[in-house]
Amino acid sequence: MSFKKILIVSGTHGNEINPIWAINQFNKEENRIDEGIQYTYAIGNPLASERGCRYVDVDLNRSFNSVNQNNDDKSRNYYEIKRANYLIKNFGENGSDPCGMAIDLHTTTANMGTSIVIYGRRRKDLCLAALIQNKYGLPIYLHENDKEQTGFLVEAWPCGLVIEIGAVAQNFYDPEIIKRFLIIISSLRQEINKLKNNLIKLPDQLIAYVHQGSIDYPKGKNKNINAIIHPRRINQDWKRIKKGDPLFLDMEGNTLRYEGEEIIYPVFIGEVAYKEKNIAMSFTKKEVIFLSNEWAEEFFN
Amino acid sequence: MSFKKILIVSGTHGNEINPIWAINQFNKEENRIDEGIQYTYAIGNPLASERGCRYVDVDLNRSFNSVNQNNDDKSRNYYEIKRANYLIKNFGENGSDPCGMAIDLHTTTANMGTSIVIYGRRRKDLCLAALIQNKYGLPIYLHENDKEQTGFLVEAWPCGLVIEIGAVAQNFYDPEIIKRFLIIISSLRQEINKLKNNLIKLPDQLIAYVHQGSIDYPKGKNKNINAIIHPRRINQDWKRIKKGDPLFLDMEGNTLRYEGEEIIYPVFIGEVAYKEKNIAMSFTKKEVIFLSNEWAEEFFN
Repeated sequence: MSFKKILIVSGTHGNEINPIWAINQFNKEENRIDEGIQYTYAIGNPLASERGCRYVDVDLNRSFNSVNQNNDDKSRNYYEIKRANYLIKNFGENGSDPCGMAIDLHTTTANMGTSIVIYGRRRKDLCLAALIQNKYGLPIYLHENDKEQTGFLVEAWPCGLVIEIGAVAQNFYDPEIIKRFLIIISSLRQEINKLKNNLIKLPDQLIAYVHQGSIDYPKGKNKNINAIIHPRRINQDWKRIKKGDPLFLDMEGNTLRYEGEEIIYPVFIGEVAYKEKNIAMSFTKKEVIFLSNEWAEEFFN
Repeated sequence: MSFKKILIVSGTHGNEINPIWAINQFNKEENRIDEGIQYTYAIGNPLASERGCRYVDVDLNRSFNSVNQNNDDKSRNYYEIKRANYLIKNFGENGSDPCGMAIDLHTTTANMGTSIVIYGRRRKDLCLAALIQNKYGLPIYLHENDKEQTGFLVEAWPCGLVIEIGAVAQNFYDPEIIKRFLIIISSLRQEINKLKNNLIKLPDQLIAYVHQGSIDYPKGKNKNINAIIHPRRINQDWKRIKKGDPLFLDMEGNTLRYEGEEIIYPVFIGEVAYKEKNIAMSFTKKEVIFLSNEWAEEFFN
């Protein structure tokens, strides 16, 4: 695997405009090469970005499992399927301009703060996530084992993670959110440099919020939402809940409660873009994941 | 003019979902008649609401000047033009189910708080706005003399105002925002009842933020936005600014400043839906408008 180049993607969702702005500020000659590592910047979904919508035909960040597969004619013509193929062909591990890592920048309307998302338990991803968590105490969302949600961009690279920052409205420029992206990109580069120069000791462990599944809004026969996120649950991402804690509030003022026996930590609470995916929030469990310092030594091998 | 009926509209913009939820909670048998006044509830733009977008063809809340005009064939077939005609035909002053007043409920991604918008200086609108301002100290935005922006819904009724609440993201259910709509609707009903029963003395005056015009984002040759709202200006709606105060921040970190000589108060700062209207914010001037108590006496004549 080549680590000479790292791909940084913004605008994978066209209405998440703050990372695009941050990258435009960052993408200068002096920021393109650092300790021998070259940084390449791409807008994930330029057409959706131009139109101010999440996607044109299908969600680009669920389209990377379709790449190089025998798609039916219809989906082959979807803008995002073509775009996923383009990105792989150009910047993939075996692309014309190969990158060994992808960092994908996203915003959310949920109150997630600055957070890291990784997909599965790849060692290199865990290394990077652990280093950033160690530095800032940021929460890590480990997404795995969800058949309903696959084909994320960074999974198509040998190493990669998502930076997810919120709450911010779609299409709303927020200087504070932009600042946070600039800080986290700089930090990632610093940590990557240290990894490259073997100047770093990995933390022994990281704390991950491991994806367990998602729940939908309560819905009526017409599939309309008939209860909203409860006032005591909205904006409370990463906070633990136990049996009996409120989840939703219906139109008559009734509270619908969490009935599970296990302690869980909801995330992406009320995310606007997930309504069409029938997701009101996702449930996670806290888990300690142990790291070995060898993983850092292997990082650039 | 008939005041037996008052029309309350939510979902005039399909992605402003909190007032729709509030009205669904409010629209119960016991809330439909009050002191002999009947309340009728309508979803302004049901198709856009179903699709989660602001509008389908054109902005419904700029389409009420097209009603009954000799539109060209194309615009006559726009969904919102037909919808505006439908609302007037049914609930207009001379409609089949005539309403003497319209209250139109909106949300904004700008940090406007709970505010009142009136269009022009109609006495009845000023009465109602003054009573609500007197009760809660809410800001009143007086929109007038803007050729670029016409055809607002409430202008098509003899009396009417907009309740505008933010900041909230489009399509995001926020229980706090819903609560604010329920409070303001109840208050409006109380004040209307007092007006009906001559139980009220009007305040001598109200303070309005009078629309002066709007400014666009600084743009490049490709019409792309090349400066965002300044960190010191974002979310600072209703706050006074003077010559030299920052307005925008460009990609190189340069501050673009307000160069006018007059004190102004920007509103709708960074409103997402106004980007397509080439509006980054609107400028207002504070003005004291005097009221005569006779206006209250005339209210139900």
